[in-house]
Amino acid sequence: MPDIKLALLGFGNVGRALARLLLIKRDELRRRYQINWQVVGITTLRHGGAIDPGGLDLEQALTLAEAGKDLSPLSLQPATIDGEIFVRLCGADILFENTPVNYQTGQPAISHIRTAIESGMHVITANKGPVVHAYQELTELARSRKVRFFFESAVMDGTPIFSMWRETLPAADLLAFRGVLNSTTNLILTLMEEEKSFDEAVVYTQEIGIAETDPSGDIQGWDAAVKVAALVTVLMRVPIKPAQVTREGIEGLTLKDVKDALAAGRRWKLVCQATRVDDGVHASVGLEQVEPSDSLYNVIGTSSSITFESDVLGDLTITEANPGPQTTAYGLLADFINAVHSSP
Amino acid sequence: MPDIKLALLGFGNVGRALARLLLIKRDELRRRYQINWQVVGITTLRHGGAIDPGGLDLEQALTLAEAGKDLSPLSLQPATIDGEIFVRLCGADILFENTPVNYQTGQPAISHIRTAIESGMHVITANKGPVVHAYQELTELARSRKVRFFFESAVMDGTPIFSMWRETLPAADLLAFRGVLNSTTNLILTLMEEEKSFDEAVVYTQEIGIAETDPSGDIQGWDAAVKVAALVTVLMRVPIKPAQVTREGIEGLTLKDVKDALAAGRRWKLVCQATRVDDGVHASVGLEQVEPSDSLYNVIGTSSSITFESDVLGDLTITEANPGPQTTAYGLLADFINAVHSSP
Repeated sequence: MPDIKLALLGFGNVGRALARLLLIKRDELRRRYQINWQVVGITTLRHGGAIDPGGLDLEQALTLAEAGKDLSPLSLQPATIDGEIFVRLCGADILFENTPVNYQTGQPAISHIRTAIESGMHVITANKGPVVHAYQELTELARSRKVRFFFESAVMDGTPIFSMWRETLPAADLLAFRGVLNSTTNLILTLMEEEKSFDEAVVYTQEIGIAETDPSGDIQGWDAAVKVAALVTVLMRVPIKPAQVTREGIEGLTLKDVKDALAAGRRWKLVCQATRVDDGVHASVGLEQVEPSDSLYNVIGTSSSITFESDVLGDLTITEANPGPQTTAYGLLADFINAVHSSP
Repeated sequence: MPDIKLALLGFGNVGRALARLLLIKRDELRRRYQINWQVVGITTLRHGGAIDPGGLDLEQALTLAEAGKDLSPLSLQPATIDGEIFVRLCGADILFENTPVNYQTGQPAISHIRTAIESGMHVITANKGPVVHAYQELTELARSRKVRFFFESAVMDGTPIFSMWRETLPAADLLAFRGVLNSTTNLILTLMEEEKSFDEAVVYTQEIGIAETDPSGDIQGWDAAVKVAALVTVLMRVPIKPAQVTREGIEGLTLKDVKDALAAGRRWKLVCQATRVDDGVHASVGLEQVEPSDSLYNVIGTSSSITFESDVLGDLTITEANPGPQTTAYGLLADFINAVHSSP
């Protein structure tokens, strides 16, 4: 079994968690899946890039990046932080595209992925942007090149959602879904129930690293809307854009609203939902007060949950507790194994 | 694409629900999965058997069985209700083994399945008996004959559990699980919360057809213990028998116990669990009072739920609401599609 050559475009929290998981699972991948791998390229805006067709020392790359140092000493050739050039030069079999999400256009990730697929690479990403802005094009391109474009970690981290529908629910028709899909806003709501102000709660989510410096994408419901659009596009096979999702954020909610709901035995949740209708799909993100009997009532803090209504099963609910970069990394690893084992 | 020949051993609620689902999904299987099928044999203790290598009229078989009539008029050759002989004669590519579960030995299902695999058939079953009593033997036999032995519906009906772990959670190590897996006892507990006596509740579960005439397999926790053993054997790769599961049933619980728990804000649940330990697995079925914050608190009536703890994800919970013969049938259909599409 020849080594499978991996390239990591993006080496932030998720990219590094993937690197650590690859090292932890190296023996198991060899033993159980007959997969040997080496990382031939890493690039990142913050730590520069490194390419070595003979295989980089991944532990050393982790050490350098975690010490805030540049990766270029590991490189056999002049390093690049240009994603496009990196993809062309890296010589990998599989590209992990982990650049930051761009809600509006999905770029530059879409270009990176397109170039990689055209070069015959499987592409695996946790990036929602390319899924909502270019799912059909990239999937068809991948099919024509006999490679895979997988993105399990784009929604609910490594929890199997896309792969569950793809692999384990054949011939099932998704009629509707409802869930809590944005960790940051859900944690903010939980903190407000613990009497923290909205602003204090936002600062806390930034301090623990789950919200961006500009948290508006989460708070205004954009991140949730992008996830709804991704699920509708892929699982309901109705391509919609985030702007087509009726959207409400949590910014209007006051501490009093939260207290009043609690006093009445209810909790506010930012609920994502979509329902198939005659002429397409109705999709929305909005605040709801949920009762204790609602499956979303116990989804607190950074947990998330989704209930699927289909033509063949009763309501099927998947709930994920305690996500983190390492669970996102696991979704990428699972996609890697499945891409290698399912390729045509 | 030549027709795939199916044989149905067992044509009770589940077998007939499968037949109806096959008819409903016929066009979709052709269009999306390039699968054409015909049923070449059906046999059942109650309605006799029918074999026709050219394909039986499945709608007519359903009509006859539902009218309580014998299937033999459909048969081209002398019919048999002997499972073993049926398997040898039917000439199918895939056997659906849906005879009643035998908790103690797994027979005669194990013999049927062995014969079918040796004849080169994929075997698909909702029967837990062969999974706990012969998983390793049958899986290795299937591997050697390059066919599949799938049993998604053996636990939580058609909800993807075994296939989820097989297809979507590669290289994940299952450390522990905890859940409610027996619908009959869970419904009895819910009915007792609604002030029905234990005996009234048992009668009700029999009337709606989810409990057997002799409901002791459910009530004493055997059905739950068999499911725990199946999950441990397959997903934790530690073969254990139902007798090795520490087991408690619900027969000792009084209406007063149920009321006292409710008054304290709690609910009694028959909890299935298993935890990996140094020298194997600790597995149990037992009564527990659960708090409202427990994910099992809202699992009422015939619903079921399981939480998986692994080395790579946070707690992952799968909950199924409103199961029935049609959801079990869907698990069989999903196994059928996956067996055909994954065969080596």
